[in-house]
Amino acid sequence: MILEGLVTTLSPLGELNLAPMGPVVTPNLTSFRLRPFQTSRTYQNLKQHPFGVLHITDNALLLTRAALNLWDDLPPTFSARVIRGQVIASACRWFEFEVESIDDSSERTEIELKILHRETLRDFWGFNRAKHAVLEAAILATRLRLLPPEEVRASLARLREPVEKTAGPDELTAFQLVWDYVHQILDNS
Amino acid sequence: MILEGLVTTLSPLGELNLAPMGPVVTPNLTSFRLRPFQTSRTYQNLKQHPFGVLHITDNALLLTRAALNLWDDLPPTFSARVIRGQVIASACRWFEFEVESIDDSSERTEIELKILHRETLRDFWGFNRAKHAVLEAAILATRLRLLPPEEVRASLARLREPVEKTAGPDELTAFQLVWDYVHQILDNS
Repeated sequence: MILEGLVTTLSPLGELNLAPMGPVVTPNLTSFRLRPFQTSRTYQNLKQHPFGVLHITDNALLLTRAALNLWDDLPPTFSARVIRGQVIASACRWFEFEVESIDDSSERTEIELKILHRETLRDFWGFNRAKHAVLEAAILATRLRLLPPEEVRASLARLREPVEKTAGPDELTAFQLVWDYVHQILDNS
Repeated sequence: MILEGLVTTLSPLGELNLAPMGPVVTPNLTSFRLRPFQTSRTYQNLKQHPFGVLHITDNALLLTRAALNLWDDLPPTFSARVIRGQVIASACRWFEFEVESIDDSSERTEIELKILHRETLRDFWGFNRAKHAVLEAAILATRLRLLPPEEVRASLARLREPVEKTAGPDELTAFQLVWDYVHQILDNS
């Protein structure tokens, strides 16, 4: 299965990087494989400091900011328990990992993780159609240059409906961030 | 916000009813309003025994079976802590409630809940595009008679893509249940 999560890594200078990642996992969450591109900061960081933190969250606004790199400030973090790394304080739970192996023979790498520690911070909010629509919209925005503009506009317009019906303030903010991001690019291309 | 959850109630004879419900809630989950139709078993049960259990789950297969009433057996439950009612054992967490007020002046009723007890059973699996696509597909299936058949077919075909890319066995089963349910009705109408 693919888990839509967030990964933090550290650069050689100790700078925090936060990236959305869709690791391939087993349904019981015992095996994790990341697939970052060689151009990504996550891959570059893990080559040098092979430790990081994978987060499970229900925070669609956080995922949107991470996917589109639209930060005011990075979210609050605290030190990981058993590795050198940072945990996002608002996550539902987190997994501290060590890189077990890297296959970077392709542009898209395959990185097997060994989980060293897992811990829960808070409950899942619950299924909410707006959270998921925001997630789909954010994923769409990251694929903007691979899709026909009219298809993107139509998909985004469709996703607006469940957002308007079921969102809270954070999901409305997140959807608007994606909407503005997408239309600014489409209108100027 | 709208939370996509599951509500259990008891009939006057003590029979368990399990129904998907989209209560209107505050983002911090302190206020809950159910909106069942007067024709629903949930409304009829709550009129007579004004206690029930609202569950938060990430189990798309369970929600699908509940939405389409496609059970082999009802899922395992155990007795609620502080009310006469039943808790679904596989939920992430649950809220035991008493009905505070019922407005049934319209076909769609408004029922304010007072939460008497809340408890957590297990962690949220995590965001997964297939879980959400299944949920959208199940909601679509419950609205089948309100939508043009071609629109339903197109929506379902679109939802298949994230399912095939990201699902585990349960989400594949759930999506297939919806797919068969929808196409059986559309092909025979």
